[in-house]
This record gives sequence, C-alpha cells and structure tokens, in this order.
Amino acid sequence: MSAFIFDLDGTLVDTVYPHALAWQKAFDELDMVVPTWRIHRRIGMSGSLLIADFARELGRDLSEDESSRLAEAHTEHYLELRGRPAPLPGARDLLHELGRREIRWAIATSSEPAEAEGALEVLDLPDDAVIVNGEQVDAAKPDPEMFQEAAKALGVALKGSIAVGDATWDITTALKVQMKAVGLLSGGNSADELERAGAAHVYEDPGDLARHLDEVLA
Amino acid sequence: MSAFIFDLDGTLVDTVYPHALAWQKAFDELDMVVPTWRIHRRIGMSGSLLIADFARELGRDLSEDESSRLAEAHTEHYLELRGRPAPLPGARDLLHELGRREIRWAIATSSEPAEAEGALEVLDLPDDAVIVNGEQVDAAKPDPEMFQEAAKALGVALKGSIAVGDATWDITTALKVQMKAVGLLSGGNSADELERAGAAHVYEDPGDLARHLDEVLA
Repeated sequence: MSAFIFDLDGTLVDTVYPHALAWQKAFDELDMVVPTWRIHRRIGMSGSLLIADFARELGRDLSEDESSRLAEAHTEHYLELRGRPAPLPGARDLLHELGRREIRWAIATSSEPAEAEGALEVLDLPDDAVIVNGEQVDAAKPDPEMFQEAAKALGVALKGSIAVGDATWDITTALKVQMKAVGLLSGGNSADELERAGAAHVYEDPGDLARHLDEVLA
Repeated sequence: MSAFIFDLDGTLVDTVYPHALAWQKAFDELDMVVPTWRIHRRIGMSGSLLIADFARELGRDLSEDESSRLAEAHTEHYLELRGRPAPLPGARDLLHELGRREIRWAIATSSEPAEAEGALEVLDLPDDAVIVNGEQVDAAKPDPEMFQEAAKALGVALKGSIAVGDATWDITTALKVQMKAVGLLSGGNSADELERAGAAHVYEDPGDLARHLDEVLA
C-alpha cells in the first residue's frame, strides 16, 4: 500500500515567494547581502541549514543568538508579507480525491509550526490529517526523517510511496528512501531543475497532478 | 562598434521577487487568483501586457479603469515590499569596467519610471548614462522598440550588440533584432529556460558576467 507525502509551501499553498523575500529582508538586517534568487533555490530545506549555508558562503561567523534572531525575523517578515495564503490551484480537490479513493496521504513541511498554521488552515483539511513539521523531528529536509515519521503515522512503507514537492530538496530527499518523486512548478523552480534532481514526473500544480493521477500511480 | 543593453530588474538590481509578489497582491485585491510563479515568469514584459494576459487566462473582462488601478496597486505594493533595493553582485563594477574599456552601454527597462528610479539610484550611474524606460516608447518588451531607442541614443547598430537580461523576454526580444543575448540567473529563471529562449551564454549575475567579459565579446 503506497501513500502520498506532500510538501506544503509551493506545493499546496502559494507561499514560496513571501518566504524568499522574508529571508532576504532578515539577512539584510544583519548586513548580509544574499541575492533573493539564491534563497529561492534553498526554500524547502530547514531554516537552520539555510542560515548556516549562507553564513558559510559569506564567511560570517554567526552566534547562536544571531542565528535564532535571524530565524525569528524571517518568521515575522514572512507572516506580514504572506497575509492570508492562497491554496495552489487544485490543492483542496486533489486531497479530497485521494480521500475518496482511500489513498493515504500526509503533509511533511520544514516550516516552523507558526508559519505553517495559516497555510494549513486554508487547505480545509480533515481532522485526522497527518502533518509532520520541523519541530517533530531532529533533522528537517534534506534529511528523510520527516518522510519516515509521516510513513510511520500513516502505517505505510516509504519504498514505493510518492513524494510531491516543488523544491529539488523534496526530490533528492525522496530518492534517498526509494520513494517516487513528483515535482511541481508552482514553487517557481523549472521543470529541468526538478527532472535533473530526479523527479519521475513534473506537473504545473496540484490540479495538474490530479489530472494525471493515474499516470503517477501507474 | 557593438554595445551592451542591460535590463534593470533581476539583471542589475535584486527586485524581481518584490515585483512578483506585488502583482500577486494587486490581482488578489480584484479577486483574481494568479499563482505567483506564473507572474514571476512574466516579469520583464510590460505591465499592461502582463495584466491583459492574466485577465484573458481568467476570462475576466477588465475595464480600462480597473487595469490602471491594478497597475497603480502594483506600483504601491512594489515600492513598499522592495524598500531600498540591493544592486546585484558585481553590477556597479561591471558598468565601471565597461566605461573603463570605452564600451558603450545602456539600460532598457519595462518598469514605470517611479519604480525604476530607486533602483537606478543605488547603481551609482554616471550622469550621461542612457536609460530607456517604458514611458519613452509605444511598446515595451517583448517589442524591440526599447532596444532600438537605446541603440539610437548610443549611436550603435543593434546587430552584433549584446542584450543582457534575466527574463526569457529579454532574450527573445534581443533575437528579433539580431542582437547576441546573455542570460543571468539572478532574476530566478533557470539556465535551461534562458538557453531554450536563445541565450548564447548564461551567467549567475553581473559579477559573473564581468569575469567572462572576454568570452562574451569574442
């Protein structure tokens, strides 16, 4: 019995762009000049890894206190920039269709719970939906621990299950645990980037995936 | 004698992401749900074309008044989201280096003057820099009129001159008038997208282009 494990930001809700801009503003406040397109390519990995990566690139030695202030500034800017998030086209219908077909699914997101909350709300999820966030595991993506937690909660094997995400991190993480990876363009990465990372299929958004559900399950 | 014609947003300044998010918010206020990644792929074309494209896709008949209010809302959101724009890495040095080598260059941007102003300021341009904006021509990119105006002001031929941009629109517009097109990743489009549009070279940002100047001029 295989299942779907979805990323949240850029996969089910239209929130990658406020995330990228919020990080850029948070870095800027510490006089760290980080071009937004580079941040965009790292959305989907855990915040602490993202901070550590850019600090290393800039040769900047951040104290633990600075790192956590940076993460807090990101959350503040993000919530302000995002406002009420929009579900991506077809997101709610896709989840309902999986429920109707009795195909199990979960959401695994590296986002902080405070950031994920509003996004999960607009998806109109069933009460028993399985959600794994960055606080419930020791290591967020690109570590597969979130997928393992989700699979345990769903009672399914990871091997042969399907990971759906908009970031190359979702794809490479899925391949580490023999999942099938499906990429979505709705986070602003290109089809080539997702295919090169190892996506078996690439669709525009959740609605486009829903229209190709039999292809994905084949 | 060939010259360089640069795009502004995403090519010399880090402003594509606030542009994309500002359009998303402006559309949202008219209850037009437009995913941000689709807007991102259209940044660089003129605002009126962008509005007309999405209105057509959504089957929405916008009055002239609604269209201009949408454009104004975009400008307001953009200026607020952008704050003080950051030059992209190496932008100022590249323009200085061209000046030092007595290679002529201009900036051609579809942006409104009110939007471009702050971005041009941080680039620390010489007083006699040639800037062509959307108000000076009848049709902005993907129409080549802006490039033609810039070439006229520089006293160079377009054929053999070099267009530098981060959007596929910059590339396809340049090819229409036999320019050589150089793509930059700094606006968040992928190398594959820019190459497929016809870019002869793709670099990360203006600094990376500066390091490969002889390759571009060859």
